[in-house]
Amino acid sequence: MDKIATQADQVLAAIRFDANGLVPAVAQQHDTGEVLMVAWMNAEAVRETLATSRVCYFSRSRGKLWRKGETSGQSQHLKELRVDCDGDTLLLLIHQDGVACHTGRRSCFFRAARDGGLREIAAPLVSADALYGHAHG
Amino acid sequence: MDKIATQADQVLAAIRFDANGLVPAVAQQHDTGEVLMVAWMNAEAVRETLATSRVCYFSRSRGKLWRKGETSGQSQHLKELRVDCDGDTLLLLIHQDGVACHTGRRSCFFRAARDGGLREIAAPLVSADALYGHAHG
Repeated sequence: MDKIATQADQVLAAIRFDANGLVPAVAQQHDTGEVLMVAWMNAEAVRETLATSRVCYFSRSRGKLWRKGETSGQSQHLKELRVDCDGDTLLLLIHQDGVACHTGRRSCFFRAARDGGLREIAAPLVSADALYGHAHG
Repeated sequence: MDKIATQADQVLAAIRFDANGLVPAVAQQHDTGEVLMVAWMNAEAVRETLATSRVCYFSRSRGKLWRKGETSGQSQHLKELRVDCDGDTLLLLIHQDGVACHTGRRSCFFRAARDGGLREIAAPLVSADALYGHAHG
């Protein structure tokens, strides 16, 4: 068994996947600390991400592996994967190419409770058309 | 309707709670950017957190509201609540009193895939006994 397989086995053994075989993963830009998005991984996505250092999620809506950036070009490069105390959440320290959000914003968390309401605090940096052409995915 | 109620209503309208009425919330230290923990909130926990600026989660294991720090003294003071693009995750910018993790570590994400395995990268700052006496909760 090679080194990568051993590490993946140790990581997978520490994860408590939910009834659907999924675990939420928080993606954080490794140097600035920006929390960019939260998505889900299954065991295969964890293995692929560790093996390739390109972040791969599991898309709940599409029911299949989702190689972040495969369509949009906005890939995530893994710097370090962390597991929380009870193994039910992952933290991915990454470098984000371009923007994380499908709306073209850097972070998915662009709405904030401010000034008595829920306010948009960031504008798109690129258009959805530029990211996806006519397909959203 | 007062200002807080209006804001809470706007925030709650933007959240897509899951089938159990819950949404995951990422707690991030507002100034250092440390991701400290991920827990769950129901609508009542969101309302209470916005109203009091003390973070209140919903404990899935205990099936009730969990006012972070109520037992351990390690409270979280809300600086800003953010909602992601599709409303299924929250980001809480907070100030953490002491430590976030029940193990006595600052962050729950103290295990990292490094050096071919899964390694502990942070030690407890306080003991579980100091946090909880003989009860863990």
